[in-house]
Amino acid sequence: MNKAYIIGIGQTPVSESWDKSLKELAGDAGLMAIEDAGIGYPDGLFVGNMMAITANHQAQFGTLMADWLGFHHKPALSIETACSSGSAAFRMALMAIASGEMETALVIGAEKMTDSPGSEITASLATAADAELEADFGLSFVGLNALLMRRYMHEYGWKHEDFSGFSINAHANAVYNPNARFQEPITRESFSRSAMISDPINLLDASPVSDGAAALVLSSRPNQNGRKPVSVAASSSMTDTLSLQNRKMGTRLTAAEVSAKAAYTQSGLSPSDIGFFEYHDAFSIMAALSLEAAGFCGPGEGPRLALEGKIKIDSEIPVATMGGLKARGHPVGATGVYQLVEATLQLQGLAGPTQVKRNRYGMTQNIGGSGSNIVTHILQSG
Amino acid sequence: MNKAYIIGIGQTPVSESWDKSLKELAGDAGLMAIEDAGIGYPDGLFVGNMMAITANHQAQFGTLMADWLGFHHKPALSIETACSSGSAAFRMALMAIASGEMETALVIGAEKMTDSPGSEITASLATAADAELEADFGLSFVGLNALLMRRYMHEYGWKHEDFSGFSINAHANAVYNPNARFQEPITRESFSRSAMISDPINLLDASPVSDGAAALVLSSRPNQNGRKPVSVAASSSMTDTLSLQNRKMGTRLTAAEVSAKAAYTQSGLSPSDIGFFEYHDAFSIMAALSLEAAGFCGPGEGPRLALEGKIKIDSEIPVATMGGLKARGHPVGATGVYQLVEATLQLQGLAGPTQVKRNRYGMTQNIGGSGSNIVTHILQSG
Repeated sequence: MNKAYIIGIGQTPVSESWDKSLKELAGDAGLMAIEDAGIGYPDGLFVGNMMAITANHQAQFGTLMADWLGFHHKPALSIETACSSGSAAFRMALMAIASGEMETALVIGAEKMTDSPGSEITASLATAADAELEADFGLSFVGLNALLMRRYMHEYGWKHEDFSGFSINAHANAVYNPNARFQEPITRESFSRSAMISDPINLLDASPVSDGAAALVLSSRPNQNGRKPVSVAASSSMTDTLSLQNRKMGTRLTAAEVSAKAAYTQSGLSPSDIGFFEYHDAFSIMAALSLEAAGFCGPGEGPRLALEGKIKIDSEIPVATMGGLKARGHPVGATGVYQLVEATLQLQGLAGPTQVKRNRYGMTQNIGGSGSNIVTHILQSG
Repeated sequence: MNKAYIIGIGQTPVSESWDKSLKELAGDAGLMAIEDAGIGYPDGLFVGNMMAITANHQAQFGTLMADWLGFHHKPALSIETACSSGSAAFRMALMAIASGEMETALVIGAEKMTDSPGSEITASLATAADAELEADFGLSFVGLNALLMRRYMHEYGWKHEDFSGFSINAHANAVYNPNARFQEPITRESFSRSAMISDPINLLDASPVSDGAAALVLSSRPNQNGRKPVSVAASSSMTDTLSLQNRKMGTRLTAAEVSAKAAYTQSGLSPSDIGFFEYHDAFSIMAALSLEAAGFCGPGEGPRLALEGKIKIDSEIPVATMGGLKARGHPVGATGVYQLVEATLQLQGLAGPTQVKRNRYGMTQNIGGSGSNIVTHILQSG
C-alpha cells in the first residue's frame, strides 16, 4: 500500500466517566486530533467501537460521530471486530488513503462501558466469544481466558505468581501517563493477594472495564506541525476460530503469529528491530501469548521475559509503555487507537518519563476475542 | 479508484427463517458467491450487519464468518451503518482492492431479525435513530418515518393512497423473484385497506422484518465464468444528522442528493443514463424521497412518477426490479448487498421476467437511519 502518515492525535483520560457520554468522549478525542493535525476536516471518518448498540443503545455510531463533529455530508462508518475494533478501523482508513479515495481520514476508537443504559457489560463482553459454542453456555469472557491461562500453566509449569511481571510493569509505566486509569504502582505481594475473579485470573491479572476515546488523523502526506513524521511501515490482520475448542494449538495465538510475520515481511524488519511493543494485555495470559506470537520469545517463555525485567522501559523489549490495557485501561473499541496514539508519541520522542530510547520502529498488536481477530501494525519514525 | 469487478454472487431466499441461524444464512450466501466466482477463497472478508450483537448475541460476526466459511488466517471484519451496512461493506472492499491490499474480496450482507435470542427487534431497529434526541423518548423507527411522511403529505398535498404505486410496483416485480419474501401482487384497494402501523404508515407502506443474506466476490480482474463482466462505475457515501429535527430540509434526503451527485460526477453519467434504480424503499415515503434525491424527479414529485407507472419495468426508471425492500424483504444489514446482487443480474441480462431492457448502467442506493448514512453505487456492464 502507499505510504500514510499519522499527522494528528488525541485521547481522553481513560476513566469511569460519569459526566461525559460515549458521544462526548469520542468527540473530545476526535476534535483534539483534528486540531492537532491542523488541516481542517478530514475527508472521512472511521470509528472503531464494539458495544455502542448494546451498552449505549446507539447503532450507526460512526454516522452519529460525523453528525456530532460537524462532518458536513462526508462518509463515515463503524468497524467492529470486538476488542480489536480500534485498529481495524485504522487499517480501513489506511486502505481508503492508499486507494486514493481519501487524502486524509479521522480514526476514532471509543467505548463507554460504565454508567451506560445497557449495563450488562459482562454479557456484552461475552458476545466476543462464539455464541453457539461458548457464551450460550454461560462462559464469560474472563472465564474463557481463565481456561486458557490454566492450560498454559499446566503445559509450561508456570505458577500464578509468575505472571506478576506483566501487571507490575504496566502499572509502573502508567504512573507517568496522565491519561491512564490507574496511575499507581503495584507490587508482587499486592498482585498475589488480589481478589480472585475467575480462577486462576485475579483482579490484578485483568484490565479494567473503562470508558475512553482516542483518535488520530491519517494522511497521504507528512505532518506540517513541526513534530517528527510518523508513518505506517506495516499493517496486517488475520483471523482464527472464535472458539478456543476449535484451535489446533490452544495455548498459541496462531493468527497473531501469522499476522506478526506478515508485518515483518511487509516492513522488511525482524523482532530485534522493534524498539517497543504495545501489546494486548487484556489479561496477563494474553500479555504472555502476545509476546510469544510476535516473536520476542519462544512459546511458554513470556512470563520469564517479564520476571527478568526484559519488558521494562529501555530493556530488551519495552511493552505497555504507557500502562497498557492493564493500567491505562481497556475501553475495548478504543484500545487499538490508544496503542497507536501512544506509539506515535514514543516515535516522536514525546512519551515523557517512559520514553524509550530505541524509537525508530514500534509495533502494536490489538486482539479481538480470545485471539480470533488480530490487527498488527508497525509504525516508524520518518 | 482502480476498477473492480463483481465476479461472483450468491443470495438466500428472504424469509422468516426457523431452520437456519444467522451464521448459516450468511455462510450459504458466501459459499454460493465463492463457488460462483470459481477462484477459491478470496483474500479477505467484509461483512455488513447491523444487529448480530443485539439480536443474535454475537459480536465480531465478520470474524465468525471467516471461521465458519474456512477462511484460514485471513482478514475479516464487520461494518455497520445501520440499514446501509451491506453496501458500506461493499464500499470498503472496493477500497481494499483499489489500494492493492487485496486482489479479491468476499462481501456478505446478513441479518437475522426473526426467531432470534434477542427478540426485541423494534428496540434494535430504534437504535438506528439518534438515541439521545429520538429513540430515548420512545420514538420507534417506523414512528420517525411516519412523522416524515405526514410532513411530506402536508407540504406537497399528497394523500396516503397516492403512495400506493411504490408498493404495487414492488410486489408486482417480486412475483417473479424466487428469493423474494412476498411473491404475490397487491392492489390499490388492498394497499388502502391494510392495517395501520403508525399513522399514516400502514402495513403495505412498510418493508417486512426479515432474515436473509446476500454475497458477492469483488476482484481487480473481470470474471472468467462466461457471464458479462460487471464493474463499479461509481461509489459514494455521505452522512447527514441522525435526528430529523436537526435537518435543514426535513423532507429532502440531502445526503442522498449529495451522494448521488458525487456518483454521477465520478462516472460521468446523468440520471437519464441510468437504466434502473434499486432504491431503498424501507417505507413508501423513503421510496419517494430516494427517487427525488437521485434526480429522477423533482422534490415532491416521487408519488406522481409511481402513479403514472413510470417506475415499472421498461418504463422511464424501473425501480425495485426484483421486489425491493418492500416485497423482496429488508433484512437490514443484508439489503445493500441484495441490491448489488440484483443489479448485477440485471446488467448480465439474467433477471428473468423482470429483466430491464436498458441494462448498461444501474444505480443502487442504500440508506442507513432516516437518511443519515447514504451509500450510492453505479454498476456498469463491461
